Amino acid sequence: MPLSMNDNAVSIFKRRESAARSYCRSIPALFTRASGSTLTTAEGREYIDFLAGCSSLNYGHNDPDMKQALIDHIAEDGLAHSLDLHTDAKGAFLTAFERHILRPRDMDHRVMFTGPTGANAVEAAMKIARKVTGRNNIIAFTNGFHGVTLGALAATGNGYHRGGAGADLGGVTRIPYDGFLGDEVDSADYLEAMLTDSSSGVDAPAAVIFETVQGEGGLNAASREWIERVAKLARDHGALLIIDDIQAGCGRTGTFFSFEGMDIQPDIVTMAKSISGFGLPMALTLVRPEHDVFGPAEHNGTFRGNSHAFVTARVAIEKFWADDAFQTELAEKAELLTEGLRRMADVVPGARLKGRGLMQGVDVGSGELAGEICAHAFEQGLVIETSGSDDQVVKVLAPLTTPAETFRKGLDIMFDATRAVTAKTSIAAE
Amino acid sequence: MPLSMNDNAVSIFKRRESAARSYCRSIPALFTRASGSTLTTAEGREYIDFLAGCSSLNYGHNDPDMKQALIDHIAEDGLAHSLDLHTDAKGAFLTAFERHILRPRDMDHRVMFTGPTGANAVEAAMKIARKVTGRNNIIAFTNGFHGVTLGALAATGNGYHRGGAGADLGGVTRIPYDGFLGDEVDSADYLEAMLTDSSSGVDAPAAVIFETVQGEGGLNAASREWIERVAKLARDHGALLIIDDIQAGCGRTGTFFSFEGMDIQPDIVTMAKSISGFGLPMALTLVRPEHDVFGPAEHNGTFRGNSHAFVTARVAIEKFWADDAFQTELAEKAELLTEGLRRMADVVPGARLKGRGLMQGVDVGSGELAGEICAHAFEQGLVIETSGSDDQVVKVLAPLTTPAETFRKGLDIMFDATRAVTAKTSIAAE
Amino acid sequence: MPLSMNDNAVSIFKRRESAARSYCRSIPALFTRASGSTLTTAEGREYIDFLAGCSSLNYGHNDPDMKQALIDHIAEDGLAHSLDLHTDAKGAFLTAFERHILRPRDMDHRVMFTGPTGANAVEAAMKIARKVTGRNNIIAFTNGFHGVTLGALAATGNGYHRGGAGADLGGVTRIPYDGFLGDEVDSADYLEAMLTDSSSGVDAPAAVIFETVQGEGGLNAASREWIERVAKLARDHGALLIIDDIQAGCGRTGTFFSFEGMDIQPDIVTMAKSISGFGLPMALTLVRPEHDVFGPAEHNGTFRGNSHAFVTARVAIEKFWADDAFQTELAEKAELLTEGLRRMADVVPGARLKGRGLMQGVDVGSGELAGEICAHAFEQGLVIETSGSDDQVVKVLAPLTTPAETFRKGLDIMFDATRAVTAKTSIAAE
Amino acid sequence: MPLSMNDNAVSIFKRRESAARSYCRSIPALFTRASGSTLTTAEGREYIDFLAGCSSLNYGHNDPDMKQALIDHIAEDGLAHSLDLHTDAKGAFLTAFERHILRPRDMDHRVMFTGPTGANAVEAAMKIARKVTGRNNIIAFTNGFHGVTLGALAATGNGYHRGGAGADLGGVTRIPYDGFLGDEVDSADYLEAMLTDSSSGVDAPAAVIFETVQGEGGLNAASREWIERVAKLARDHGALLIIDDIQAGCGRTGTFFSFEGMDIQPDIVTMAKSISGFGLPMALTLVRPEHDVFGPAEHNGTFRGNSHAFVTARVAIEKFWADDAFQTELAEKAELLTEGLRRMADVVPGARLKGRGLMQGVDVGSGELAGEICAHAFEQGLVIETSGSDDQVVKVLAPLTTPAETFRKGLDIMFDATRAVTAKTSIAAE
Repeated sequence: MPLSMNDNAVSIFKRRESAARSYCRSIPALFTRASGSTLTTAEGREYIDFLAGCSSLNYGHNDPDMKQALIDHIAEDGLAHSLDLHTDAKGAFLTAFERHILRPRDMDHRVMFTGPTGANAVEAAMKIARKVTGRNNIIAFTNGFHGVTLGALAATGNGYHRGGAGADLGGVTRIPYDGFLGDEVDSADYLEAMLTDSSSGVDAPAAVIFETVQGEGGLNAASREWIERVAKLARDHGALLIIDDIQAGCGRTGTFFSFEGMDIQPDIVTMAKSISGFGLPMALTLVRPEHDVFGPAEHNGTFRGNSHAFVTARVAIEKFWADDAFQTELAEKAELLTEGLRRMADVVPGARLKGRGLMQGVDVGSGELAGEICAHAFEQGLVIETSGSDDQVVKVLAPLTTPAETFRKGLDIMFDATRAVTAKTSIAAE
Repeated sequence: MPLSMNDNAVSIFKRRESAARSYCRSIPALFTRASGSTLTTAEGREYIDFLAGCSSLNYGHNDPDMKQALIDHIAEDGLAHSLDLHTDAKGAFLTAFERHILRPRDMDHRVMFTGPTGANAVEAAMKIARKVTGRNNIIAFTNGFHGVTLGALAATGNGYHRGGAGADLGGVTRIPYDGFLGDEVDSADYLEAMLTDSSSGVDAPAAVIFETVQGEGGLNAASREWIERVAKLARDHGALLIIDDIQAGCGRTGTFFSFEGMDIQPDIVTMAKSISGFGLPMALTLVRPEHDVFGPAEHNGTFRGNSHAFVTARVAIEKFWADDAFQTELAEKAELLTEGLRRMADVVPGARLKGRGLMQGVDVGSGELAGEICAHAFEQGLVIETSGSDDQVVKVLAPLTTPAETFRKGLDIMFDATRAVTAKTSIAAE
Repeated sequence: MPLSMNDNAVSIFKRRESAARSYCRSIPALFTRASGSTLTTAEGREYIDFLAGCSSLNYGHNDPDMKQALIDHIAEDGLAHSLDLHTDAKGAFLTAFERHILRPRDMDHRVMFTGPTGANAVEAAMKIARKVTGRNNIIAFTNGFHGVTLGALAATGNGYHRGGAGADLGGVTRIPYDGFLGDEVDSADYLEAMLTDSSSGVDAPAAVIFETVQGEGGLNAASREWIERVAKLARDHGALLIIDDIQAGCGRTGTFFSFEGMDIQPDIVTMAKSISGFGLPMALTLVRPEHDVFGPAEHNGTFRGNSHAFVTARVAIEKFWADDAFQTELAEKAELLTEGLRRMADVVPGARLKGRGLMQGVDVGSGELAGEICAHAFEQGLVIETSGSDDQVVKVLAPLTTPAETFRKGLDIMFDATRAVTAKTSIAAE
Repeated sequence: MPLSMNDNAVSIFKRRESAARSYCRSIPALFTRASGSTLTTAEGREYIDFLAGCSSLNYGHNDPDMKQALIDHIAEDGLAHSLDLHTDAKGAFLTAFERHILRPRDMDHRVMFTGPTGANAVEAAMKIARKVTGRNNIIAFTNGFHGVTLGALAATGNGYHRGGAGADLGGVTRIPYDGFLGDEVDSADYLEAMLTDSSSGVDAPAAVIFETVQGEGGLNAASREWIERVAKLARDHGALLIIDDIQAGCGRTGTFFSFEGMDIQPDIVTMAKSISGFGLPMALTLVRPEHDVFGPAEHNGTFRGNSHAFVTARVAIEKFWADDAFQTELAEKAELLTEGLRRMADVVPGARLKGRGLMQGVDVGSGELAGEICAHAFEQGLVIETSGSDDQVVKVLAPLTTPAETFRKGLDIMFDATRAVTAKTSIAAE
């Protein structure tokens, strides 16, 4: 049985941790161990993890190869913190990243190690775009989520987070994301009209920034056509294209980058979450050489050289992305996931499947219902969370390495929870 | 002999790392191992480290106790990444921090785990102050450095970093730091006049933010009187007092917090750099309970639960701050440092000692001279850097745990470098 | 024949007037006298005036009754300048305005005399809305024009004017005006979606501001349905409704206010241009009593008491708006205008009629063509100008008092000019 | 006896005029006639006018020559409103302004006719400076007053007015005006330090804007040395120098421009208030040819061609500034004024004389006392007002043409009022 917040073991959190704490409220347990797709509490209860650190643990907890490499590094007095000095760990990561990721995808991007948060990678990207173009305005989209520091927050749509600024958030023009206005309206038409009419009041943009699948925004997946068209509009109007691949990247949608197979070449790509492979803080901003305009330390940060993360990130690249095997596996798991979610959606009137690849979920129509499903699933041993502007989407972000059996077990729990909750609701309604 | 950037081993950096890289330019070596105050290159050359990750490695590299605890944690499949879930590692850190740091200092602050960068802790602090007061204006000071994300950058004085924004930086009023206008003018008078005159054009402030010793700004140390007076002005005018203790905290000035022994109680304290003890990314915003106004996840971030850092941070607190021994040691080392720097300053006409505690340096009058001294020192086996608006200050940020002998050796190298460089300059001038 | 800019009489303008001068470039003449709808040059050449000071001379030049009243006022040493002191002239204007304008329309608004420019009235309106709601965001529309001072300019869509700021223009969200996205898309749907979705990134608005017919934006006339729906959306979301009636008000669309006959009650109405009746600088912000929140002089301005303008404004109200006669006349003239423009539009392939009431024109498809038509018309004795984002609309803003015969003569010149220009173009194309 | 606000004749103001009305509150009378330095109420009571429309009526009310010229212009159907078309009235004004003002002072400035408010002239000036330099930051000073539209308001120091914005006011750095920090501190030192230190946090400025005597700010007169030094600092740092001569210009300080006799050449000068000579709305921005960068209509405004104002402005220039006679007279009157104020100041313990030329007053130490003196003076037939951050300065802005006898009479009333009020206060204190 889950811990109560009044238990002795967790009273320290209540007493001393800021009220800003969040996930621990809906997932009231004290975790002590984790391995693969399994979380274990102090009492020894095991949970299947369909949250995976919000997609920061795409390769599961404590992957044995990364774990061993990291222990070896530490045991041998490898550097932990290295500012932006040259180290063997950083060099090895860069070499692997170039060889297995950038070169095979014909990407000539430079790697900027920013402060190790996604928001910092986004702030760097926005600053680069403004510096390159000499323009201020950045086009962002409804339901986009890019972080909560002041620059990134301006591009974030969520009103709750925006309200936390206590200051005006300027420099961003908001455009409806693909599908925001329903199926009949192509919001790229709208963007084109706004950029083309000289009296639209939308100033010439420095950049267009978006996620190809909006993780926090409710698993909205833009169509390939829309993405390619928006990318072309950006280029035609002299704006840089920034793909925020922080949540959707690192295999989450089925390929390393979420935009593979599309006819676009982003000027800037932001990465964080699973880039270290092990859940360690690390963030990158990939930038094409002609836009690599920062001078030395112009955008700096103390923890831009987290050597532990370089070690595990290198192993992750070499283990999972040196050939096609992992990617093939992901396609199969995505089908398994779609199937499981469809079964679940069938139980909820009006429910809709959202997302793509291993980044899917079900919009059950209300945040209340979604929350009850997750709570019920937690009781049955599954950690899972919601997303969307009203938290109305039950979101699966399982480790990509989750074994098929565990995956099915998790989906079964979700199905049972959905049936139980909707049954209860139906009875209450009668 | 230091590596050239054209060497094979480092060509990957040149080819793929962003031009924003910085320290590696003046410290051209490839580091592979580090222990205590010693950095070792791939070729086995050892350097004394007087940079210490810009004060992120106050307890040196790979402290054996933290190292063992971290290896144990990883080996036992302890969590690496935990969002803001409850974990044993976080609970243990909070318990130690409450017991050895907060309680003995009568601080009732709550601990907010922000994204693991100092900038993020500052952004959280500024947002809290604005939310609490409903005001926008934040008072910051000349030569203050608080980070380079858009919110924190507005409070940062450095023109080079500000220029990187490509956007206007609003919401901050700049006031001269203690000593900025020379010894005759007390800049607190100026602040008082600006806050008191209703037509000064300085809007009622949400917060006053400063470092008690400005690390990046050139080791300017404010006097106790000035700090207490500014703190009182903040309180009298309804503004929150934010002490940015990111670089000066964790013992750097001789006590855990840099403001101990002063008659102030900051509403908010930001910490990062050495808080994890081991150089791992971690940042905190301490906030008094009545100002702990963020709702759940209102300020969030994926890496706000870096469990590895919690493990080492706990050990650091328990090992160094459970009693007074370490603090006593620091006072002795600070004298050693002052003495060494005085010797060095005597060689440079017009040179001035800056800073306090283990955060001292010498203003040698020009960035060129300071740079040459550091370059010469590097050749002799010492890693050291400059700070200040013109990089005119040779800055010592040695690990606090540096053995006296090593400390002396480093100071000797500095002295020799200074003499060599000034001798060369004198000859050139003749 | 029109004056060349090199003539002696106009060399002073070239030598000493700023390059910001504009209309004099396309209307190269030196005017000395004006009466009714006729402008007369120094050489005695007469022009029909279809520009009317951009709708500032709705009652024609030097209306005899206003003229006499003004001469009497001056001759008797009536005050010219009165700050916001009480004067008989101001009292008489307010009394007439209350009696003939506000009361018959059930409007309880207070009259705020702002600085005598439309932009100032708009700035006051935006400040009031922000002060009342405690919100910053203001919803403005594509192709809206509200002035070029920094606050008003943020709400103005025109890119050329916006570029003149040299500063970022914040605090405004841009929404497509009625018809901007074509006939199939109702942009009010878009506004509703943006206001309703809590993650749209559009912050809760302080106000919604628009013109019912966009004068500078190309004579775009919003439909009654759209206006009523947007008004309701504003109310439902706690935003004030600001109708900018600076160009469309004072009878221009056929009624005193442009929104009469619609089921809306604006919280704020801005007026300028023809409010003085005589072309004298004067501006008003009408505000409902519950929103009349400015303290004494909180928004002030030296020329907010232009007594000469009060004198002529009172006469204008009493002469034209004491009964329905004038309004009936306007309806007839509007038909005359529509008919004349339709005849003209028929000559230009793809041309479209724009606007409503006495605020109509023809979109001839390109700014070049529209400019040639106006230039040709000027040669034939008609002063007329263009509007729209590409200056593609030939815009008729004749005095509302223009006699039918003169009106027809002007329309004939327009028709002939259009035929001549298009014939020339056709020949050139063959 | 002055009117009560409940009287019938003024009830319309109470009922329909916005609460933003101000002067009418402390000067409760209904004025109907005005001539020279005399205001007459509806009941025939005469007041000496030491307010003069806040320096908008430097040549008194209804100057007979301007009056006749204006009546002639109107009677002959001269244009009233002319956008920025060429008219004889505008040409004649420009010719006179060039001949009698610009040429004799070796000023090659171009004349930009902005919207007819001082705030508009300031907004144009700030926009020009930002456009010319490509910088955003503008240096303004404590207690400066430049208008209340959003751009100008950012440069205005007064907290009450700033609070009316309901929005953040960015793009301006505040520096202490001459004397703000007492006599010992030269605030130009402070400005120099802020501009010179690259880490001061003060971004490179587009412009430095100030009044040589701060009218609304409390008649603070900067010294010639300070002004010249600040002008040089602006030039040395690539910033434009904007002198806001709206209140201090047109002879108010004893010369046409307030900066004559100083070794500066402003890049931009803003003028309004008395420039029309007759109190009619008119404003100018003078700009050196190399900075005349606005394109046609880039900064526009409907009332930028107030022909009535051009007529009276021309007469004012020709009548008062064609030779030195008027200026000589002003010097004598300034002495008379100083003498009268000194007599008054002697009655108030701690009182200080402020200002220079015909722009002087007495700081009586508190707004309450200053208000009582003005109220008492009003009862005795003198209209006079206060200024300063706490309204603590009794400010004389008499028409420059006030006959010596009237001037003395006004000063006598001030003296008597001061004595009466202080006597009352002394008795109350006993």
